[in-house]
Amino acid sequence: MRLGAIEAGGTKMCCAICDENGNILERMTCPTLKPEETLPVMRAWFEDKNIDCLGIACFGPIDLHKDSETYGYVTTTPKPYWGNTDFVGAFRSLGVPIGFDTDVNGSVTGEATFGIAKGIKNVVYLTIGTGVGAGILCEGNLVHGMLHPEGGHILLTKRADDPMEGSNCPFHPNCFEGLCAGPAIQKRWGKPGKELGDREDVWDLQAWYIAQALVDYTMILSPEMIILGGGVSHQTQVLPMIRKYYAEFMNGYLKTKELEDLDNYIVVQSLDDNQGILGAAIIGLKELQAQG
Amino acid sequence: MRLGAIEAGGTKMCCAICDENGNILERMTCPTLKPEETLPVMRAWFEDKNIDCLGIACFGPIDLHKDSETYGYVTTTPKPYWGNTDFVGAFRSLGVPIGFDTDVNGSVTGEATFGIAKGIKNVVYLTIGTGVGAGILCEGNLVHGMLHPEGGHILLTKRADDPMEGSNCPFHPNCFEGLCAGPAIQKRWGKPGKELGDREDVWDLQAWYIAQALVDYTMILSPEMIILGGGVSHQTQVLPMIRKYYAEFMNGYLKTKELEDLDNYIVVQSLDDNQGILGAAIIGLKELQAQG
Repeated sequence: MRLGAIEAGGTKMCCAICDENGNILERMTCPTLKPEETLPVMRAWFEDKNIDCLGIACFGPIDLHKDSETYGYVTTTPKPYWGNTDFVGAFRSLGVPIGFDTDVNGSVTGEATFGIAKGIKNVVYLTIGTGVGAGILCEGNLVHGMLHPEGGHILLTKRADDPMEGSNCPFHPNCFEGLCAGPAIQKRWGKPGKELGDREDVWDLQAWYIAQALVDYTMILSPEMIILGGGVSHQTQVLPMIRKYYAEFMNGYLKTKELEDLDNYIVVQSLDDNQGILGAAIIGLKELQAQG
Repeated sequence: MRLGAIEAGGTKMCCAICDENGNILERMTCPTLKPEETLPVMRAWFEDKNIDCLGIACFGPIDLHKDSETYGYVTTTPKPYWGNTDFVGAFRSLGVPIGFDTDVNGSVTGEATFGIAKGIKNVVYLTIGTGVGAGILCEGNLVHGMLHPEGGHILLTKRADDPMEGSNCPFHPNCFEGLCAGPAIQKRWGKPGKELGDREDVWDLQAWYIAQALVDYTMILSPEMIILGGGVSHQTQVLPMIRKYYAEFMNGYLKTKELEDLDNYIVVQSLDDNQGILGAAIIGLKELQAQG
């Protein structure tokens, strides 16, 4: 089959044709400009590609309620021009079933279908990059709830030696994203994370915050695996520090085979940053199957 | 139908015969002594009750993996005598299908079947009493994951004016249960919560912690409703304070119809403390239906 897929991000859009075995047959990337510029470019690209379905994994917040008047919309995003945009509607004239979900639900679907979490039914995928978000597979289902998880905005305890006043989030003085996303690192240390690779104090603090968040994810969802994606997944020196603090914070409270082996419990994305687009393809395939 | 139900708690056991409409036809309560004393008493009570199935909602930690050798066991509980106890096994000779889940999953099932959350598919039930626990219905499924949620052990930020050093949890210096459960209140203020009903400082701090936890639950699970049970649900003066702090911490970040109406988003248990036993009955009924 030919599965159309879109990974819609705040700075770029990735379009691809995939097959059901996790191969990417064709790919096109374009910058995220205004909706009236970018959506037609993508639609035109798919026009003659003979796709069976389309899956869209989209930045948020988005409306996932199928019975809502604004289903398929990007809703209240602060991103210029994109608020209240009918994303799915731009592709309806392709005449194929369209699946729609969050970017991070795309990534967790990719990893649970083709990647390191293949076959696992309870998985948390956390992207820590420009923002922080959570894609969650729970008992085999993607979590949506009343809206969709906004897992970057859980509240953390600030460390006394954090040199940043408050956080970088305009809403929350101590949320995960406000303390750990790329712009927070830039604000705190005056440089982007990728220029701070050898600064142990930077990553020690980062690991301390991330570990705190992971403990909360474990306590609430009891996932069988936690996958880290986004920029942090390329700073591999931070991973052992995260595991060390995680074990310290858990303090032996839970005994499971998964937690006895943190090297395989807290892992990084395994699909070379293709987890989102491959997951988008599967989200489209599932919609095709659901429509029978 | 005659649905057998057990709500197994650390201090008492409640056994009942229910029907599928939420009526409790008969009930028996006994103290939780040693397993070899208490389990036979309960088993004998059900012996001649002509039940179609049995549902057990049990204190934890428990083993919920059906393919595990210790499925149906209470596992590593610190409760004297009950560690490594085959709870389900004690009832197999009744010859009926047996459903088994956590006490809090029993409560959320009761509320989502007969109570205030009837028909809602994404619900968090938090009991705040002797301990703190979370029963979670997510996209219509009870959450188990690698073990089951241990939602009382999420980490909170301590408030500077909290007179208690550390927390009351032997594992975590700042977890929800360690700061908010009944024994923490007793340790902090020298009296049990029910003797402190008119102390505004007590409930202000309690509400501040609970609201922080509820924000994390909303961000991770995006539930459509959060139900509070346990002792705190009888201190109704605390509810408006929780909602006030919750709104303050959220700071308008999420816009949904549910969050515009916090009086109906953060609520107390609605079944007069029968949510657990009624949910247990439904857990048994579902096992009966699953076995066809």
